Amino acid sequence: MPHSPRLEFLAHIERTLYTAVISDSLDDLGFRDRALRENVRPAYPCRPFAGWAFTFACIDVYRVTPEPYAKEIEAVDSLLPGHVAVAGTGRSTRNAPWGELLSTAAQARGARGAVIDGFVRDVKKIEEIDFPVFAAGVKPLDSKGRGIVNEYQVPVDCGGVVVHPGDLIVADFDGVIVVPASIVEETIALATDKATRETHTRDELRGGAFLRDVYARYGVL
Amino acid sequence: MPHSPRLEFLAHIERTLYTAVISDSLDDLGFRDRALRENVRPAYPCRPFAGWAFTFACIDVYRVTPEPYAKEIEAVDSLLPGHVAVAGTGRSTRNAPWGELLSTAAQARGARGAVIDGFVRDVKKIEEIDFPVFAAGVKPLDSKGRGIVNEYQVPVDCGGVVVHPGDLIVADFDGVIVVPASIVEETIALATDKATRETHTRDELRGGAFLRDVYARYGVL
Amino acid sequence: MPHSPRLEFLAHIERTLYTAVISDSLDDLGFRDRALRENVRPAYPCRPFAGWAFTFACIDVYRVTPEPYAKEIEAVDSLLPGHVAVAGTGRSTRNAPWGELLSTAAQARGARGAVIDGFVRDVKKIEEIDFPVFAAGVKPLDSKGRGIVNEYQVPVDCGGVVVHPGDLIVADFDGVIVVPASIVEETIALATDKATRETHTRDELRGGAFLRDVYARYGVL
Amino acid sequence: MPHSPRLEFLAHIERTLYTAVISDSLDDLGFRDRALRENVRPAYPCRPFAGWAFTFACIDVYRVTPEPYAKEIEAVDSLLPGHVAVAGTGRSTRNAPWGELLSTAAQARGARGAVIDGFVRDVKKIEEIDFPVFAAGVKPLDSKGRGIVNEYQVPVDCGGVVVHPGDLIVADFDGVIVVPASIVEETIALATDKATRETHTRDELRGGAFLRDVYARYGVL
Amino acid sequence: MPHSPRLEFLAHIERTLYTAVISDSLDDLGFRDRALRENVRPAYPCRPFAGWAFTFACIDVYRVTPEPYAKEIEAVDSLLPGHVAVAGTGRSTRNAPWGELLSTAAQARGARGAVIDGFVRDVKKIEEIDFPVFAAGVKPLDSKGRGIVNEYQVPVDCGGVVVHPGDLIVADFDGVIVVPASIVEETIALATDKATRETHTRDELRGGAFLRDVYARYGVL
Amino acid sequence: MPHSPRLEFLAHIERTLYTAVISDSLDDLGFRDRALRENVRPAYPCRPFAGWAFTFACIDVYRVTPEPYAKEIEAVDSLLPGHVAVAGTGRSTRNAPWGELLSTAAQARGARGAVIDGFVRDVKKIEEIDFPVFAAGVKPLDSKGRGIVNEYQVPVDCGGVVVHPGDLIVADFDGVIVVPASIVEETIALATDKATRETHTRDELRGGAFLRDVYARYGVL
Repeated sequence: MPHSPRLEFLAHIERTLYTAVISDSLDDLGFRDRALRENVRPAYPCRPFAGWAFTFACIDVYRVTPEPYAKEIEAVDSLLPGHVAVAGTGRSTRNAPWGELLSTAAQARGARGAVIDGFVRDVKKIEEIDFPVFAAGVKPLDSKGRGIVNEYQVPVDCGGVVVHPGDLIVADFDGVIVVPASIVEETIALATDKATRETHTRDELRGGAFLRDVYARYGVL
Repeated sequence: MPHSPRLEFLAHIERTLYTAVISDSLDDLGFRDRALRENVRPAYPCRPFAGWAFTFACIDVYRVTPEPYAKEIEAVDSLLPGHVAVAGTGRSTRNAPWGELLSTAAQARGARGAVIDGFVRDVKKIEEIDFPVFAAGVKPLDSKGRGIVNEYQVPVDCGGVVVHPGDLIVADFDGVIVVPASIVEETIALATDKATRETHTRDELRGGAFLRDVYARYGVL
Repeated sequence: MPHSPRLEFLAHIERTLYTAVISDSLDDLGFRDRALRENVRPAYPCRPFAGWAFTFACIDVYRVTPEPYAKEIEAVDSLLPGHVAVAGTGRSTRNAPWGELLSTAAQARGARGAVIDGFVRDVKKIEEIDFPVFAAGVKPLDSKGRGIVNEYQVPVDCGGVVVHPGDLIVADFDGVIVVPASIVEETIALATDKATRETHTRDELRGGAFLRDVYARYGVL
Repeated sequence: MPHSPRLEFLAHIERTLYTAVISDSLDDLGFRDRALRENVRPAYPCRPFAGWAFTFACIDVYRVTPEPYAKEIEAVDSLLPGHVAVAGTGRSTRNAPWGELLSTAAQARGARGAVIDGFVRDVKKIEEIDFPVFAAGVKPLDSKGRGIVNEYQVPVDCGGVVVHPGDLIVADFDGVIVVPASIVEETIALATDKATRETHTRDELRGGAFLRDVYARYGVL
Repeated sequence: MPHSPRLEFLAHIERTLYTAVISDSLDDLGFRDRALRENVRPAYPCRPFAGWAFTFACIDVYRVTPEPYAKEIEAVDSLLPGHVAVAGTGRSTRNAPWGELLSTAAQARGARGAVIDGFVRDVKKIEEIDFPVFAAGVKPLDSKGRGIVNEYQVPVDCGGVVVHPGDLIVADFDGVIVVPASIVEETIALATDKATRETHTRDELRGGAFLRDVYARYGVL
Repeated sequence: MPHSPRLEFLAHIERTLYTAVISDSLDDLGFRDRALRENVRPAYPCRPFAGWAFTFACIDVYRVTPEPYAKEIEAVDSLLPGHVAVAGTGRSTRNAPWGELLSTAAQARGARGAVIDGFVRDVKKIEEIDFPVFAAGVKPLDSKGRGIVNEYQVPVDCGGVVVHPGDLIVADFDGVIVVPASIVEETIALATDKATRETHTRDELRGGAFLRDVYARYGVL
């Protein structure tokens, strides 16, 4: 892993940036509202992470389908280092499509985290293996007979944002941001610059300066 | 307390099982959707617990009724070791029917925890006495003139599941499960077996095995 | 700051009282339902605080207005020691009107905390500077082109309670209470007395007494 | 019935006033937000009506209670000419506490209409007998085993307004207004005056006058 | 069509029964809560109808899939006389999976109506051809690129009730009832009997009898 | 009015087109989801209409502001023939910003209708003057002390769509469509063509043809 520039890039983002400044940069580029709905939260106090979206399209079912886990297993076994599993569930509240065993398998494949706009279970066990998961809630119900992975690596709606395979996902305590694949470099460059200016603003404010003066000087808020 | 087999049984569940595997076992027995709504969460990072449901049917009122706490006091004073106080509020957001003093009294009677599908207050003080409480939220408003315990030890809807007095309640970070009294032994036996198989699956996945192979071997996910 | 009686009064409330007992006292005085909606929660595990409301009326906009931060900067720069910034957003979910830089500036002015019925961002950085913030959620989106401070120091609806400039705000883990300015002294006096009686009740219950006996003795629950 | 002044007064309101102007008058008297939640609508295109509130407090139950209809029958048989049946259900969506047979019985007792913040059934049959009913929806489920009338002639919350027995209820296509019993005469007098001024405004606007001129003249909008 | 007993049976239900009395009969048989969610309403003031469920499982998509209408066309062309098209959409608000052309095609195949827990469009044109449709709302957006029929003739959740192919659907102004295929005859027999008793109750109440006496006599409410 | 081509164009749309086919044309042009939220419905069974958006930005207030109706009067008096009043309220449920007097004034100025994503009152009187109004509900509460028009002729969010002054609004029973000003001609041309092809499809389906054959022939559904 250490020698892959794509992974190095992700590690760089994790070390130096954060979702708020990336969101501001997307705004400046005219890509607005790229943050997932606010109910997609860390399932436990997990690390921030960045990675490339590998999407799961989950749907509700009302019978035990033949081979209910077939596509899900296929998808998880296809994850590669640097991927983030992104599951769109249509806001389903019927089951937890993600849990400890999928987390363990995804981690073994090199995935950096998972983002589900539905529920997760086995949270305490996931915390033990330190695999970051963001979800819309926690519920102990299994997916069997309730939901399936219908497709993967297709565009999905996750938390109100349409995520395409290969989009950049950045997640931290403030939420989850989706950067379209085509503008990743431009966005990260802008964000790096803005982060620097915010540091100056912060320092002067801590020193007791008035907001109007500091804003006049650096133009960031 | 140490010599009661009923309490010993609860302690055994708390030590070795968890809501996800019990929920799966209920599924296998045809008792589906026995998990409370996902907004019923630990009020603070409390211990998991298991116990027998002692139900409170709470209703909203719009006047200070004569002896507003009468039934509530009667109910709490009737709790016995091994009980879990289960309060159905009809999703009321008007007040907190549970708080520190009821927690203290319930704990003194031997209750193992409380589950409310409405609000709780005095959470920091409840945390100090280490009495586990799950609730739909936190709000400082008292019940007087807002709600009463109308009946107790009748079937109540708590978080979308109808709970009967004597049902087994198991609560942990993943949520709250209600096992009908008539199938407690069967469910716990199944869950114990499934928990063992999950351990094998987990171990192999951590070793880097593909999900399809491990699932083929143990049939659990 | 140490010699201001107004600030001393706030510190006294923070040390000895809590929202539940203040809410009960407001009930007794006929001021009911003075607690903010239950979704206004601590943005991180922050300290309880008390202070005088300085209100912000935020509205959604759908264009980048000229000088989008003008009123916001003016308002934050007007904060004085003892103030609490209270932002009413009409439950907006479009952006985070509060963040790290405003927190830093407010703290430098002597504000004791902030309460927003919308979202906040930069939460981890706010935690670092130990400025208490209660909000309805966390989201990384900036206000520019999404919302503005339209007015300040006017009555606002924050979390379902109409807050007037100068009202007393008390916030702790149980929620946020708004005490109308005209009855602050009376309310705090009542609350102090009730807090004492609750201590007796608690002690006897911990000793194993039945609720009916303790309630008969002290009349608090 | 023709010679009762109380009934004559209701007929007078039905003939000459409407909820909007009564609501404005309540505003002027400082009684704000006396309109039921907007989801309480005519169950069919029924006549406007006015009457004195006779309240039903409905609660959800999760078993068939002994004599499930006892209080409901007692309450309906107690209705007198001029009454409006007002049922508070806590926004229950589990059943329809009102239907054709209760409408028929209420009409036979002289009730002028019914207002339920839950559901109604048998709507087409109720339309046939021309008994006005406002409700939050229509659903064919009976109350048996789902809900009971727990009390009657106590304060209830109906559609977000606390209604006391004897309050004046006025319902028309714009919604339902609750006038506290103590201010009925004052409110109706004010409303009668305002209705007159609105007529002038309307006439001039229809003639093509500008709003600023007409408003300057009559001060109503 | 006139000589099919299955169609004759449906016509008999439409002429003599209604959803409320069928729901009560299902209650008596222990099949509770078989009514669709209350937001599934007639799209226009259409005729009541009864028929056998032919189910459509609709899902949201976020791209124009190849042959987006393929399954939908196949399903509609498979409808037979006596069928009711029942579409489960997972409460989608993104598009209208049903409209005028599908209504026209379904009517030509002999279908008796359609029930969708999502939206419908072209309502005025559907009213012109007199094809009964119940839906959760009206919206002009087409399904292309928003949703597809993923499967048909499988169990679907429609309005909160799991509908199996072949279940009996009865829809009138009070709502939509789903009778499991296995108990259709028993349910209809019970309902026919109860409908008779309600007629007696109604007649006596209209004559001015008290509810307690009439209920004592016929035991229906 | 008869000789204005802009008004003639609107009348042409009203006579020959409808929201569904315009929405499909917008989809084809890559402008998706231009329909207002489904809860914005005709306030009474009013005529379809088309017109140019004149926007009102309404906000909630919690005091009686000086000259509370000033901007509202100014805005209504500025309406010109062909305009549609479009009010964005942030989904406010506190009051009815539109009513009979504004309808009368707007109609006198030549406005073709009003669209409010909040409430309307005086609906029966508005029906009498035949001024079309779409709204999210009906409630008798006046705006005074509850809401004001804060700005007009700025971009507003109305029912989930950002409407700019001058956009084309088309409203009929299926809902409300917003066509950006820059693509009005192109959209209307496409819609006219598609409406023709739908007529062929409809005719063949009514004749009993299978959907697969008709769709193969005309490619519309």
